[in-house]
Amino acid sequence: MSMPKTIDVTELILRDAHQSLMATRMATEDMIPACEDLDRAGFWSLECWGGATFDSCIRFLNEDPWERLRTFKRLMPNTPLQMLLRGQNLVGYRHYEDGVVDRFVQKAAENGIDVFRVFDALNDIRNLGRALEAVRRTGKHAQGTISYTTSPFHTVAGFVKLAVQLRELGADSICIKDMAALLKPQPAYDLVRALKTALGDEVRVHVHVHATTGVTLVSLMKAIEAGADCVDTAISSMSLGPGHNPTESLVEMLDGTPYATRLDKARLLRIKEHFAKIRPLYTEFLSNITGVETEIFQSQIPGGMISNMESQLKQQGAADRIKEVLAEVPHVRRDAGYPPLVTPSSQIVGTQAVFNVMMGRYKVMTGEFADLMLGYYGDAIAPRDTEVIELAHKHARKEPITCRPADLLKPEWDGLRAQAMALDGCNGTEEDVLTYAMFPQVATKFFGRRHDGPQNVGKEAAARPVAKDAPKTAAAAVDDGQGPVRSEITYDVKFGGRTHKVTVTPA
Amino acid sequence: MSMPKTIDVTELILRDAHQSLMATRMATEDMIPACEDLDRAGFWSLECWGGATFDSCIRFLNEDPWERLRTFKRLMPNTPLQMLLRGQNLVGYRHYEDGVVDRFVQKAAENGIDVFRVFDALNDIRNLGRALEAVRRTGKHAQGTISYTTSPFHTVAGFVKLAVQLRELGADSICIKDMAALLKPQPAYDLVRALKTALGDEVRVHVHVHATTGVTLVSLMKAIEAGADCVDTAISSMSLGPGHNPTESLVEMLDGTPYATRLDKARLLRIKEHFAKIRPLYTEFLSNITGVETEIFQSQIPGGMISNMESQLKQQGAADRIKEVLAEVPHVRRDAGYPPLVTPSSQIVGTQAVFNVMMGRYKVMTGEFADLMLGYYGDAIAPRDTEVIELAHKHARKEPITCRPADLLKPEWDGLRAQAMALDGCNGTEEDVLTYAMFPQVATKFFGRRHDGPQNVGKEAAARPVAKDAPKTAAAAVDDGQGPVRSEITYDVKFGGRTHKVTVTPA
Repeated sequence: MSMPKTIDVTELILRDAHQSLMATRMATEDMIPACEDLDRAGFWSLECWGGATFDSCIRFLNEDPWERLRTFKRLMPNTPLQMLLRGQNLVGYRHYEDGVVDRFVQKAAENGIDVFRVFDALNDIRNLGRALEAVRRTGKHAQGTISYTTSPFHTVAGFVKLAVQLRELGADSICIKDMAALLKPQPAYDLVRALKTALGDEVRVHVHVHATTGVTLVSLMKAIEAGADCVDTAISSMSLGPGHNPTESLVEMLDGTPYATRLDKARLLRIKEHFAKIRPLYTEFLSNITGVETEIFQSQIPGGMISNMESQLKQQGAADRIKEVLAEVPHVRRDAGYPPLVTPSSQIVGTQAVFNVMMGRYKVMTGEFADLMLGYYGDAIAPRDTEVIELAHKHARKEPITCRPADLLKPEWDGLRAQAMALDGCNGTEEDVLTYAMFPQVATKFFGRRHDGPQNVGKEAAARPVAKDAPKTAAAAVDDGQGPVRSEITYDVKFGGRTHKVTVTPA
Repeated sequence: MSMPKTIDVTELILRDAHQSLMATRMATEDMIPACEDLDRAGFWSLECWGGATFDSCIRFLNEDPWERLRTFKRLMPNTPLQMLLRGQNLVGYRHYEDGVVDRFVQKAAENGIDVFRVFDALNDIRNLGRALEAVRRTGKHAQGTISYTTSPFHTVAGFVKLAVQLRELGADSICIKDMAALLKPQPAYDLVRALKTALGDEVRVHVHVHATTGVTLVSLMKAIEAGADCVDTAISSMSLGPGHNPTESLVEMLDGTPYATRLDKARLLRIKEHFAKIRPLYTEFLSNITGVETEIFQSQIPGGMISNMESQLKQQGAADRIKEVLAEVPHVRRDAGYPPLVTPSSQIVGTQAVFNVMMGRYKVMTGEFADLMLGYYGDAIAPRDTEVIELAHKHARKEPITCRPADLLKPEWDGLRAQAMALDGCNGTEEDVLTYAMFPQVATKFFGRRHDGPQNVGKEAAARPVAKDAPKTAAAAVDDGQGPVRSEITYDVKFGGRTHKVTVTPA
């Protein structure tokens, strides 16, 4: 028998695992004891930065995200460090002007990031180009991402076309990112095979799946059989539910097949045991979803979003309407041209579905949904509903656009820099300017209290001073960079002759 | 594209799912509302009786197991009802004389069982023949079972030989039973393929796996690709951990492949929602194991047994020795000739491992382990350690045997019948005699209080009279039919100059 093919693995424990399972609350100090084993276990990369972690660090943990990154780099010098970058949105929720994109990427690389996974919620290639170009300039690994979803318009051929465009923009490798666990085994096989055929076997294909629907470890097996080079998993004690498939199970799954990982089982066991002790400290932040949810194949709403919707409907005394809302989501998604549902499109579509059920379809429209309909987040794969576009136009008093959204932005770096430098506690670095650029209000508070040091919100840390205003909601809070800091959005809506406060928390 | 091949499914919710996840405590009344959907969803069979449910009914729930079966038959007339039968042990923990085996099978068939899955913990064909023959006489479906395990002596060829023997004894189909989630994808493929090749494609192969190690849904995919006809799953709200893979995930997994189930997703959703409401009522009985445990590949100790061992060691102030115990298990198993670890061999080997760690290797030996070494449970696949056999001989003052264990038993039906009929509350039926035969002491108590009616031990049933003596331990309690009723076994052992009470609860 010939040597098995090596399957590379990206470990997610330091970023997506705790973002998905415990609202991104894990403190750096609770990760440090596992770093040596993580660095030596044989992973292709360690995802440890970006996504919601940047926001969570400054909003909830009083941690400097750049300092966290430098700590990781110091403790894990042997394994590439990876981040998730939201294309033109960077680690925020709005489009940033190109100069900010360039500087953010440059500083992330300087502070320790080796692999940049770059995605856009709408798969609009125009939202990805600048970030990929910026990564290329740093000499680091640029990974172009397909946000995976299903619809009558999403086809293997369409995803392959996107991948070819990503390669033309300089992507070193391609990632299939399946944030809602929608990637079934046969489609996984077909898509990976088609990518390998179109791009050439030498172009690495990485596969990122969540575990929520229970089928995606099988999808990883099929992706590997189709030629995938690297798959993403999380150590077992921080896996499953809305999180990911267990790293150790992946290793065992390949036993006897023509594939094998290079992972060190003894180190995996130690990593597992460490996080098994850490996890209960964050019980209050743990996801309600612990089992498998196959209804997601219909609603496509990621697990974390469903539980948020449920609690918000409950506040309105409308808990019994969750099924109507979940049934409404596919309608809203169709009207919006079938966007993949991932931050921020998942929140935007989900919130509009709540409004449609509570108030009547499009009787009330959020500003974000109007922007989505009018092209301010980019282009959708399918035509958007013209009547709903017209309603959005009336509601928002903005014209529809067809250009790249960031083309409307004026250079903003100098202004951001001047504002940041004027703040108490700003340390004068470009990193601090970038922190301010991402979340101006949160950063302003953070700079003022940074000297207090990290505030671990884990249970046994009760004695430490915990930020009073840290709400117990998901970390991926909305900060539009202009209005007040909002981890929840509250709307006053009239329904049945009474005014209701509708509060929507982004997932 | 040609029509997909139909993959049949056996739903486990009514038997193994709650046995594995909530110590077999679910009351019939909590199952009844789901029965119509279960019956109409398109399952090949519904596993609903046998295993530990018989014991649990009379020991903890004050339910007549025969009445439970008749209720199921009345409510689910369209789908074959399936039971798990421990070969010559029936639903008890000792070997029964052949006449008792014949009568038990006959009455189970009369009361509603259509499919008998017959297994032996040691894969000793001599412990399976009589039960299979008895099933054949009833005209019902006789399924011969391979208790799956791994060892230097267990090979695909060996399992195939066992399957051929099972066919010769009259088995209509073959089941691969993987109670500890040890069956990895490639071995699953290889074994199913070899069985199909050896037995002919027309002989049905069923695959039963648990989910504990996280890899076995992939194993089901590979088994299906190799030609498996039917796989076992449990509805998602009662799945995973030491339980099974989710039924809905199996359905979705096959989407787009050359395979499909016939299951009705709308009914599955209703079944899921029903048991999602029931599960929290039994929180106090829920397994501690909720995630994935890949260390089982080394220790082979099923999930439920590990948590029992942990709590018992804790009682002895030796909680820190669990790793030593888990490391000792493979040694004990090797000495015993590599038995699969399943009731009762898992308890016997696990308990001896605890003793070896606490007292020194084989300084103390349980009577059950001595019996295992001396052949009283049947033959092992590998030679047993001769020195340990000698120790067992001295300890138990019994000679080693090589005959079929049940050959040593004298006809016992008439005696059992006379004893049962003399009991207060015995209703004079053969079913009652069989209940008495299985668990004499427990049955005696049960007959006396049967008129009180079922006692639901679920949480919201707090107002109902609950049996005071029902210990909160796993239901698969040991009753040897002679000694006092024991759901826990307590040993006095001297260790470090002090006497310890070592209590061992069977899983």
